[in-house]
Amino acid sequence: MTENIYRLPHQIVYYETDPTGKLSLGKLVDLMMLASYAQGKAVGMPEEKLNAQGHGWVITQHLLSVTRLPRRDEKVVIETKATAYNRYFCYRDFWLRDEQGEVLAQMHTAFVLLDLKTRKITRITSDVIAPFGPEPLRSIERLASPKRLEEVELAKDYRVRYFDIDSNHHVNNVHYIEWMLDVLDKDFLMEHEPVALNIKYEHELNYGQTCTSKVELLRSKDELTTLHEIYMADGTLSCSAQVTWR
Amino acid sequence: MTENIYRLPHQIVYYETDPTGKLSLGKLVDLMMLASYAQGKAVGMPEEKLNAQGHGWVITQHLLSVTRLPRRDEKVVIETKATAYNRYFCYRDFWLRDEQGEVLAQMHTAFVLLDLKTRKITRITSDVIAPFGPEPLRSIERLASPKRLEEVELAKDYRVRYFDIDSNHHVNNVHYIEWMLDVLDKDFLMEHEPVALNIKYEHELNYGQTCTSKVELLRSKDELTTLHEIYMADGTLSCSAQVTWR
Repeated sequence: MTENIYRLPHQIVYYETDPTGKLSLGKLVDLMMLASYAQGKAVGMPEEKLNAQGHGWVITQHLLSVTRLPRRDEKVVIETKATAYNRYFCYRDFWLRDEQGEVLAQMHTAFVLLDLKTRKITRITSDVIAPFGPEPLRSIERLASPKRLEEVELAKDYRVRYFDIDSNHHVNNVHYIEWMLDVLDKDFLMEHEPVALNIKYEHELNYGQTCTSKVELLRSKDELTTLHEIYMADGTLSCSAQVTWR
Repeated sequence: MTENIYRLPHQIVYYETDPTGKLSLGKLVDLMMLASYAQGKAVGMPEEKLNAQGHGWVITQHLLSVTRLPRRDEKVVIETKATAYNRYFCYRDFWLRDEQGEVLAQMHTAFVLLDLKTRKITRITSDVIAPFGPEPLRSIERLASPKRLEEVELAKDYRVRYFDIDSNHHVNNVHYIEWMLDVLDKDFLMEHEPVALNIKYEHELNYGQTCTSKVELLRSKDELTTLHEIYMADGTLSCSAQVTWR
């Protein structure tokens, strides 16, 4: 019996790092998604095949924890495994390891399958999911939602640019993370390291649309947390997140 | 005698492609810069060593020509060679090749050496350049400048974001290309392919600064050209470019 884990070796390059010289949170998620895409190809169920059948995977939530972000030139391995699924959700785990095998970061992601024509969630059939070998579940995982903002401290507007959209004409989910963090100023981002990110995707933005990224800082004795919400121009919540810092 | 060409194999990944499914122009330049950085490491004159000596390479101009942009998953090789240098300029050539060895794109780049403290151009000494094996030149290459704009047709404002700056606290030169092209609308960018880019860097932008990216379209019987200029808030020209399309 195979353990169904896919491994992608990678060496961190300069444009994946932020001003601190370490892998940026957005690029970390990009690398994890890359491993998931590569596994699809390896098991004979690539995204292209799914798209040709009129379906596509859409991320609804990421739960990420970080021990240490690797630096430029560091060699790492990204591991991924589709752990479980039910009628409407597929759950996937990711690990980022250093050369010694130490876990640097870990992520749990929930996906739904979208009917690309109707843009509605569709039932996950076994032919789509079986090649990845996840366990069938009867129940739906109850993942904690990010805490909601009470008082907006900082806000900035962003416009979806041409290079933010991918070949499926969607905004790459990583840009939402960058729009959330960029609102915090440079000094904050240079002086703090993210330890955990819980991000939930609600409504997709499209090319040319503008959004407002809002943030609230919660400081307690032991912990520094930022709450993030991205709103579409009509007031619809597009995405929310909670980040813990050290 | 070695030919002093460095070769970097690479496979195009989804987040390097644009909505057409092909490698974006900005990411192409990123990959070429990566090959140049890797050569520095390979010959024992890495950027970090240069930085520790108080110096850094700065790009003044790229002259790029494109035959075909590779698609997601395509395997390519990026080649680079420092071809020549004089007192103040180093010239480097790049080639992007497909698996059959066909040239997909070619770039000629001029670099100057900056004193990181004074931010002034400094003389290129032989200990810095000799490991790369370029030919010494007596003269300075006369590279054609991009044609200047006469009538602004489209303009958009951009703000330098946290994730636009690298570990040297500079804006990655590739972002200027993205700010230039994003001004053109999606339909234009989906329907046309770049064949040539001439981009000249004049004044660096810093974190938090805003700029205006302006464009003029020149249509002749045989050719479609766009002229681009990026201005800082105080009216200083930061960067200009000329792109030919098919």
